[in-house]
Amino acid sequence: QQPLLLIAGPCVLQSQDLAFSIADRLAAINERADVNVVFKASFDKANRTSVSAKRGPGLQEGLRMLEEVHRYCGLPVTTDVHLPDQAEAVASVCALLQIPAFLARQTDLVVAAAKTGRPLNVKKGQFMAPEDMQYVVEKVHASGTGGVMLCERGTFFGYGRLVNDMQSLPIMRSLGVPVVFDATHSVQRPGGLGGATGGNREMVEPLARAAVAIGIDAVFFETHPDPETSPSDGPNMIPLDAFEPMVDRLLRLRAACGEIMA
Amino acid sequence: QQPLLLIAGPCVLQSQDLAFSIADRLAAINERADVNVVFKASFDKANRTSVSAKRGPGLQEGLRMLEEVHRYCGLPVTTDVHLPDQAEAVASVCALLQIPAFLARQTDLVVAAAKTGRPLNVKKGQFMAPEDMQYVVEKVHASGTGGVMLCERGTFFGYGRLVNDMQSLPIMRSLGVPVVFDATHSVQRPGGLGGATGGNREMVEPLARAAVAIGIDAVFFETHPDPETSPSDGPNMIPLDAFEPMVDRLLRLRAACGEIMA
Amino acid sequence: QQPLLLIAGPCVLQSQDLAFSIADRLAAINERADVNVVFKASFDKANRTSVSAKRGPGLQEGLRMLEEVHRYCGLPVTTDVHLPDQAEAVASVCALLQIPAFLARQTDLVVAAAKTGRPLNVKKGQFMAPEDMQYVVEKVHASGTGGVMLCERGTFFGYGRLVNDMQSLPIMRSLGVPVVFDATHSVQRPGGLGGATGGNREMVEPLARAAVAIGIDAVFFETHPDPETSPSDGPNMIPLDAFEPMVDRLLRLRAACGEIMA
Amino acid sequence: QQPLLLIAGPCVLQSQDLAFSIADRLAAINERADVNVVFKASFDKANRTSVSAKRGPGLQEGLRMLEEVHRYCGLPVTTDVHLPDQAEAVASVCALLQIPAFLARQTDLVVAAAKTGRPLNVKKGQFMAPEDMQYVVEKVHASGTGGVMLCERGTFFGYGRLVNDMQSLPIMRSLGVPVVFDATHSVQRPGGLGGATGGNREMVEPLARAAVAIGIDAVFFETHPDPETSPSDGPNMIPLDAFEPMVDRLLRLRAACGEIMA
Repeated sequence: QQPLLLIAGPCVLQSQDLAFSIADRLAAINERADVNVVFKASFDKANRTSVSAKRGPGLQEGLRMLEEVHRYCGLPVTTDVHLPDQAEAVASVCALLQIPAFLARQTDLVVAAAKTGRPLNVKKGQFMAPEDMQYVVEKVHASGTGGVMLCERGTFFGYGRLVNDMQSLPIMRSLGVPVVFDATHSVQRPGGLGGATGGNREMVEPLARAAVAIGIDAVFFETHPDPETSPSDGPNMIPLDAFEPMVDRLLRLRAACGEIMA
Repeated sequence: QQPLLLIAGPCVLQSQDLAFSIADRLAAINERADVNVVFKASFDKANRTSVSAKRGPGLQEGLRMLEEVHRYCGLPVTTDVHLPDQAEAVASVCALLQIPAFLARQTDLVVAAAKTGRPLNVKKGQFMAPEDMQYVVEKVHASGTGGVMLCERGTFFGYGRLVNDMQSLPIMRSLGVPVVFDATHSVQRPGGLGGATGGNREMVEPLARAAVAIGIDAVFFETHPDPETSPSDGPNMIPLDAFEPMVDRLLRLRAACGEIMA
Repeated sequence: QQPLLLIAGPCVLQSQDLAFSIADRLAAINERADVNVVFKASFDKANRTSVSAKRGPGLQEGLRMLEEVHRYCGLPVTTDVHLPDQAEAVASVCALLQIPAFLARQTDLVVAAAKTGRPLNVKKGQFMAPEDMQYVVEKVHASGTGGVMLCERGTFFGYGRLVNDMQSLPIMRSLGVPVVFDATHSVQRPGGLGGATGGNREMVEPLARAAVAIGIDAVFFETHPDPETSPSDGPNMIPLDAFEPMVDRLLRLRAACGEIMA
Repeated sequence: QQPLLLIAGPCVLQSQDLAFSIADRLAAINERADVNVVFKASFDKANRTSVSAKRGPGLQEGLRMLEEVHRYCGLPVTTDVHLPDQAEAVASVCALLQIPAFLARQTDLVVAAAKTGRPLNVKKGQFMAPEDMQYVVEKVHASGTGGVMLCERGTFFGYGRLVNDMQSLPIMRSLGVPVVFDATHSVQRPGGLGGATGGNREMVEPLARAAVAIGIDAVFFETHPDPETSPSDGPNMIPLDAFEPMVDRLLRLRAACGEIMA
């Protein structure tokens, strides 16, 4: 059984100190043999519900902060790319490039990211069938050799609600690529807070357990020492103090599944 | 950790011999300490897509066959009730009464079934929110003391497809009742065969693993020695020879989860 | 152009006087040459969300009240049938039998209703594709010669919300049967009031206009002199004083469409 | 009653001659007093399902062709913008800028387009509630004075299918902006052709009639002299020979509605 890839961090880069304090905890988790941790944070929240919502430090400053995190804790870092011309710069710092779900069909973005040679983590659009991610995989393979992972982060299920079709995990894996489960965005409630996205943090661990039991290669979480103060995604983030115990339970579950299914 | 309740059997009663041969295997599984098995089969498929589809032996003959199964193997038996005036007769033979998903909102049926004093297994309607099953629970509690379980069996997700909202399991459990996961009906594709319901059997075990990992009290499967010959639900049934190994894996997974979450 | 069939009335039978006062208005509308009115009211709300919700006068008293309405105003009457053994009695009073959407797949109910020889109005289940209503039509044709209309009343669209797929109207019409648009139930919000169904009356006329413009044979509305006092469906009913002007606008729209499409 | 805004053209710019031949027909329609026509064609299909699908002539050549169309027939032209840095160039040629549905939440794109001072036509994301378009309107108003229209083009409704929630038209209009109905994209079947998007052209006019009857300010169609040869969206386009008669019927319907609702 391969170690689980754990992609985690605050939603958005707020301050270097905050990033370091989260990186400390993630580096401690990375000591385990059964997990490889990648630090994730966004430099820009490019699709906020409201025009007045905070967005992040921007590309240049954000990449500088991510590079500091990498230097500080040694973990590889990742972030999301929103425009084709950001791909090169992001790839110079990040070991993995993330394509947002709303942008999963934008050919130029996927191609530019793939051309950097870095592996991609493409989130399945909330409006896409898992089968149709095949064409995204083809776009990546036609453009670079870094490879691609596909990520389940919830599908449109009536206004204001997402659902995880757990069948998407084996379906996307059958396309020949690793699959990721994004446990914190899956519990979002779009528009649920009036001008902001709500969420339900209590469902994060049950859904992550379900995904691990089905079989995934990577899992994605947002975590924060004080989620209520996060500029975005607070309602669905895992408090940092609860994070390591939860990860421990998931890794033990994964090990048990590996033995049972062997 | 309570033993898992395993509700299983052929979809519909075909012949006494077939019922016995399935009951043999279920009785063997029931020897385990970590599981309690209930034999399930329908006496009537009351909502077949097509008017010319086979329906089953009917109430009287069906109950006679179920009684024979109980006498033969000692397992408690259950079946689904479609009309209020069937409840009494069914309760005279069955230890558990099942309310079909399409009928979950029919007050008289739920009340008549509850009044028998038997526990009910009510399937959440494909058109219902898990939160709204609260009112079904109240209908049962207002009418009898046998108790009620709520069952996730898939929710409408566009024409011809169902999705399991796995959040429904903790949501329905928070209503103070045991929850069941119906793994074989969840993979149905309504209308998928043109005049009949299709399905995808390969997804049954992954979804059942997900549900067990989240935490359920009971699981429901249809199984048949030769699913292709079943008058209904063939495409989503588990072949009998594959059934016990699958149940074994799920029970080991459940035990592992119990230890991890303890 | 055939006259439009207008099926209308209070949701549930409350008192004979109330039924008469609504029937008076409907009989006045029926004077027009471009419309045929059928008075509709339920004798039993058999699938109320809550067990403590009011249900109606019951079969016997309800049929007596409907018969009085017919005698009083001369309009044909219709009501919904919930159990196979109600069909005969209902057919002795009603010119048209309605099958509720939740019960559209219950073969025995559809067959029993069809066997009375009366025409049926079957509502498409919230969980059904319009194409799959073909099998319901076949069930009716196999069982009686009274004919069948199919009714669009909204499809599940995430928890607590329905959507009208307006494509369902031509799709169901292509099955060779008249189609009905149920304008008031289409705006229901299931569970929207906590233990009761909410609704949004302001959307009734826009949706009815859309359906008329596409082409329908019949339209269904619930109306009440004081919707807030109705035991059910108040939030989506049309106040009686606003009813005739709205019907007038729809009939003028239908006439215009007839000329344009001729 | 204001004239209807009719946005129409081929899906993508293929050749100057083809554009001219479609523009000829549109210019003829524009002679009517009850309609204002805008010629629309894309210079780039930036989100094709497959990486090998044809995309169009690109920004520079596409804008040159659109400018030629405008010079040739005098109609204002519009096209869709995919990246913020395309907005200025597009605004130098186009009287109206279109934001694609997948990109409706990308703040920088909406802001850059609004800053050009041109009015925008923002398509509601397939993953968005109509109410939540309020925040898009705010993004536009905070960034420019050109104004904004909102466009219904279908909402996710299970894999491979879209639905028009016709309630979205009055809901978006209640945000104080004109609303557009995109009749040809609404009938798309995503992934329906295996590696390409399918569609059902026969539903275009019924849906357009429904939207006109509810009340819209603008309507959007793709049309082509020979849809089967179009590099994209062929299955849902209206053949050019059928276009003017259809538009005539819709304008007569709109006039009739205007009189009836006056």
